[in-house]
Amino acid sequence: MKMQDKNALPIGFAAPAPIDRWDQTRADPALLAKAYADPRARRLVLDGLDPLLDGGRLVREPMPAGADPAAHILLGRESDGVPLFAELRRDIPHGATYAPRVWEAATELEPGELALYGGTRSLVDWHARHGFCAVCGGATVVAKGGWARACTACAAEHFPRVDPVVIMLAEYEGRVLVARQPRFPPRRYSALAGFVEPGETIEGAVARELFEEAGIRVRDVRYVMSQPWPFPSSLMIACTARAEDDRLTVDHTELEDAFWVDAAGVRAALDGEEDAPFVAPPSMAVARWLLVHWLDGMATRP
Amino acid sequence: MKMQDKNALPIGFAAPAPIDRWDQTRADPALLAKAYADPRARRLVLDGLDPLLDGGRLVREPMPAGADPAAHILLGRESDGVPLFAELRRDIPHGATYAPRVWEAATELEPGELALYGGTRSLVDWHARHGFCAVCGGATVVAKGGWARACTACAAEHFPRVDPVVIMLAEYEGRVLVARQPRFPPRRYSALAGFVEPGETIEGAVARELFEEAGIRVRDVRYVMSQPWPFPSSLMIACTARAEDDRLTVDHTELEDAFWVDAAGVRAALDGEEDAPFVAPPSMAVARWLLVHWLDGMATRP
Repeated sequence: MKMQDKNALPIGFAAPAPIDRWDQTRADPALLAKAYADPRARRLVLDGLDPLLDGGRLVREPMPAGADPAAHILLGRESDGVPLFAELRRDIPHGATYAPRVWEAATELEPGELALYGGTRSLVDWHARHGFCAVCGGATVVAKGGWARACTACAAEHFPRVDPVVIMLAEYEGRVLVARQPRFPPRRYSALAGFVEPGETIEGAVARELFEEAGIRVRDVRYVMSQPWPFPSSLMIACTARAEDDRLTVDHTELEDAFWVDAAGVRAALDGEEDAPFVAPPSMAVARWLLVHWLDGMATRP
Repeated sequence: MKMQDKNALPIGFAAPAPIDRWDQTRADPALLAKAYADPRARRLVLDGLDPLLDGGRLVREPMPAGADPAAHILLGRESDGVPLFAELRRDIPHGATYAPRVWEAATELEPGELALYGGTRSLVDWHARHGFCAVCGGATVVAKGGWARACTACAAEHFPRVDPVVIMLAEYEGRVLVARQPRFPPRRYSALAGFVEPGETIEGAVARELFEEAGIRVRDVRYVMSQPWPFPSSLMIACTARAEDDRLTVDHTELEDAFWVDAAGVRAALDGEEDAPFVAPPSMAVARWLLVHWLDGMATRP
C-alpha cells in the first residue's frame, strides 16, 4: 500500500536531535565551566514550556552576559561545535498536556528540531517540579550541567524521569482494536496505552493493560517502535499483540468506547475519508504509525 | 545449539507475577477499604528490602490486627482471591544495589515469586525515598492503595518510577562486544547498558550509549526482550545492533575494558568453561540472555 506523505516517517519527536549530548562534559566541572564560558554559547528560547519558531527551527539566542550557570541545562554541542543550553525556571506550569502551539510546531519544525524541543521540554518541566528533595524535603540545586539535582540537606541525587508507556494494537482475525477516551476530539480513536508498572516486562504490561481496559487476553506481543512523548516525559513503546478472542469488556472508567476495525476501515481513517469508521490519530502520535505498520503488514501477508 | 538448564527461560524477575494487580480496587476507596478489612488478607514479609523465603515461595503472614492501611500497598489479589499487601516503611536503606541474599533468592524462588518480589521491592524502596513532595517540599502520604503518594501541602500526586535502561550487544562480522565495569567480579564481562534520556527513542539511546562508551557507530538496532530490574527500579530493554566497524574507543570513566568475542568464546563463557575468554553474566541478568539469543541466531544463520 502506498501511504500519503503525512504517513512518511519519522514519527513526531522520534528523529535524532541535531546535537551531540556531550555527556562527558556534564560530569566534569572544568569542561562544564569551559562550555558556560564559551563566548559563542547559545540557549534555546522557550515561552514557558512552549516552543518559539524561526521558520523550521527553534529560536536560539546568545547566552546573556551574567547568565547563571546554575539556572541552565547543557543540552549538548551543536553541529558547529557551539554549546547549547536551556534556561531552567521555576515559574512555569506543569506540562502534562500540550497547548495548540505545540501541535502547530510539530508540523512546522524540522524533525530533528522537534526532537530537540521535546527532550528540552521534558527536562525544563522536570526541573520546575523538583526544587525539593523527595527523601528529606530539603531544597535541591542543579547538578551535572542540569542532568541531575542534588539535595542541599541530605546530598541525595535525583535524575530526570522517563516514564515507559506501552501503546498497542491488539489484532484478531484481520481486525485491530481501537478505542477512545472521553477527552479525545470527536470520532477520534487510537491505540490503547498505559504506564509500565514496577516489576513488569513490556510484554506483561501490554497484556495487563489490554485485559484491564478491554477484557481481552493476548499472546505474541511484538515490539514495533518507540517514541519520546514530552507531556511530560514518557517513552512510548509501541507493540502489537494477538487476541485470543474478540469479546470486549470495556473499562468505562478509562475508555468511552472501543471496537474492532478491519483493514479497509483503517485505510479509510488514515486517508482521512469522510465516511471512515473513525478519525485516525495525527502524525505526531505513534498510534498512527502503529496503524500504518499494521496495514503495511496486512498488505504483504500471503 | 543445546543450552544448559541454567540458560532456560524465564529471565530473572521477568516471569508473570502470580497475582492479579486488581487496579480498579486501588483507585476506589470503598473497594480498597473492603480489601483492607478482608479477614483473609495477607502481607509479604520482607527484611528491609531483602526477601524472606519459605521453600520456593516468599513468606506471607496474616495482616496484623490494627495494621495501618496508610502504611501498606495493595499488591493485588492472589490466585485464591485473597488480597496481598506489603508494609511501607521509612527506616530501610536505599536499594540501588543488592545483598547476597537476593542473589540466593533468585535461584531458589519460583519464577513468579521472584517477579513478585522484584516489583514489591521497587515499590517499597520508592515509598521509603518519597516522604516529601518534590514540587513544594511538603510531606506526602500514601494514596491509591500505595500506587501513588499525595502531597499534604500542595496536593501534587507522585507516582512510582520505572527507569528505562537500554542494554545491548553490538555485532561486527560474527563477533559481539562485551565490556566490564571496575565493580564487576573478576573476569566478568557483560553487555553495555545505559539509561534512556528524556527526548530519546530506544534505538537512539542504544546508538548514543555505544558511541559514548565504546566509540562505535551502529545501525539496525533490534529489540530482543525486556526485564524489570529492581535495583532500584529499572526496565531493562535488551537490543542488538550492527556496528559500522570494530575500532573501539573505550570511555574509561565508565568501563574498565571492552573487547569483541566470537561465537566459540561466547559459548565457552555461557558453558562456564575454565579457559573461556570471559566469565558470563549470571542467569538473573538479561545480559546473559542477550548472549544466548545472539548465539542461537548465529547457529541458525545460513
